[in-house]
Amino acid sequence: MSVESKTSQLNPGRIHQALTSYQLAMALKGAIELELFTHIAAGATTAAAIAPLCQAKEKGVRVLCDYLTVHGFLTKSEGAYGLAPDTAALLDKNSPAYMGSVAAFFTHPVMINKYRDVATLVRNGGATDHTLAPNDGIWVEFARSMAPMFASSASIAATHVTTPGQPAKVLDIAAGHGLFGIHVALHNPAAEIIFQDWDNVLDVARANATAMGIDGRFQTISGSAFEVDFGTGYDVALLPNFLHHFDFATNVGLLKKVRAALKPGGLAAIVEFVPNEDRVSPPDGALFAMRMLGTTPSGDAYTLAEIDRMLRDSGFSASESRSLAPAPQQLILARSPS
Amino acid sequence: MSVESKTSQLNPGRIHQALTSYQLAMALKGAIELELFTHIAAGATTAAAIAPLCQAKEKGVRVLCDYLTVHGFLTKSEGAYGLAPDTAALLDKNSPAYMGSVAAFFTHPVMINKYRDVATLVRNGGATDHTLAPNDGIWVEFARSMAPMFASSASIAATHVTTPGQPAKVLDIAAGHGLFGIHVALHNPAAEIIFQDWDNVLDVARANATAMGIDGRFQTISGSAFEVDFGTGYDVALLPNFLHHFDFATNVGLLKKVRAALKPGGLAAIVEFVPNEDRVSPPDGALFAMRMLGTTPSGDAYTLAEIDRMLRDSGFSASESRSLAPAPQQLILARSPS
Repeated sequence: MSVESKTSQLNPGRIHQALTSYQLAMALKGAIELELFTHIAAGATTAAAIAPLCQAKEKGVRVLCDYLTVHGFLTKSEGAYGLAPDTAALLDKNSPAYMGSVAAFFTHPVMINKYRDVATLVRNGGATDHTLAPNDGIWVEFARSMAPMFASSASIAATHVTTPGQPAKVLDIAAGHGLFGIHVALHNPAAEIIFQDWDNVLDVARANATAMGIDGRFQTISGSAFEVDFGTGYDVALLPNFLHHFDFATNVGLLKKVRAALKPGGLAAIVEFVPNEDRVSPPDGALFAMRMLGTTPSGDAYTLAEIDRMLRDSGFSASESRSLAPAPQQLILARSPS
Repeated sequence: MSVESKTSQLNPGRIHQALTSYQLAMALKGAIELELFTHIAAGATTAAAIAPLCQAKEKGVRVLCDYLTVHGFLTKSEGAYGLAPDTAALLDKNSPAYMGSVAAFFTHPVMINKYRDVATLVRNGGATDHTLAPNDGIWVEFARSMAPMFASSASIAATHVTTPGQPAKVLDIAAGHGLFGIHVALHNPAAEIIFQDWDNVLDVARANATAMGIDGRFQTISGSAFEVDFGTGYDVALLPNFLHHFDFATNVGLLKKVRAALKPGGLAAIVEFVPNEDRVSPPDGALFAMRMLGTTPSGDAYTLAEIDRMLRDSGFSASESRSLAPAPQQLILARSPS
């Protein structure tokens, strides 16, 4: 077979689909807004039955449902739609694990716009139009929308960092929604949490902490993690989804500051999307580097070996990692010297 | 296992990836602009080797290449990247089937913006902010960018509609880039082509026709297919990628006009993305309905049965379909009564 006849045998479909994959992001967002998964879970399984529940045209519902079926988020049999296991658990509003709110952050125009020129991001090795300026409003949107995405990982992480009943002073750095600190407080009634973040973001952490019943057991420190005084005497410092925003040297500087705030033998607890050494697996860890390329000047998705080296370079002991499955993240633990 | 523990076992990764899939569209566009696939095909297989060829930072190239590897457009082994079969054939500039230009249409801000509010598209059953206004500039972009996407299907379709050496007057309706008519002329030296489209789009068809060597064998009719006088006496009327923009009744009206322009026994030749009766397979045919929902008031991806019914309702004979594989489209042929 000649080169030419071989190339003519190739279907451009996959490239076509990838170049229009923004449709998938926005279709899934639209389906969440229309409560499509909730309606199907409640028994409306045809376009004709779903349409009036969404105040929508039957044709529009049919096109959306078929589109999501091709992508595996719905099933279709004899014209009746059903939910895939993950959409049933995570996108039905009546499910305890409902996480539909995350669409507002992931598909926020500010976030989409960061990727308008990926060639320039690649040339620069990072974003000039980034999200790390003081009080950037996108982090309020993040804190408001993304809590359900991290509820599972935060509740698992909490079990690894303190012992219930044992007093613990816990610093939650760049706390965002506050879920990681809140779950430590829920797991351990003797824990006191100090949330640090921009003041506009702390409003969300405070509201969540109050709503989740830990009033009286938390304080806040507002400002940049790089500039505020953390204080001292912490048993635990949480660094959830934070180090990926910065380069290696910046993280070493921050971790030295964290070490100084911990008691001797205190624990640094890092939560990260972590790629394997090949950097192309597992998908969630590996793909995360593109989010950092698009939204930070020099952030990255770091391997366990790189995080371990950051910790050692900052004076911590060797680190250990824990899976937070089913969440696609890792918990990395290291102690300051005793 | 209780409902709650079962749901807690679910990984939000797939939903996370889908809601950020605009990154895939823009990353693939960026890679095409950087000529990444061309550099890898030419032997630069590491981020360090590729970076200077793109005037890019090594880190940016690494992140982009890893991201495209996770999505299967590149391979990676021992730090060296390679091309998947389709990207080697279709995205290396030195390949005869190079189609990188399609990124400019698929990821055009106008096209992306059509999907900013899919819930409203579904409620309306179509787009209010559509692409069907007279002389909409997006069709010039389409005609300029998309020719390589249809080169294969146009060359195959041409073999089904006329016989080389046998004189044929061929109307190419909404010709766009003109590829379908041009390939008929290339296949059959006795064919004369009449391209019809908006005048701004015809400039592209004229340029392509001249560049591909059919000067003196074509004419043009400028204006809307619904308003212009096609003339009469055609042996063949091509309708490539056009019917999907309109509803069933509008298409029947247009096909009656086409029938009147054809000689008795003349051939209507329709090219379409066609879903199966289940409307969720094959992927390219099924997903196409979302493109129409987002960009037209009442267009759709029609099944073979629906297109056959349109043709019969317009006075044509029963239709036959031909695969245009590897292109993911169908050619539907029907004759006017003798």
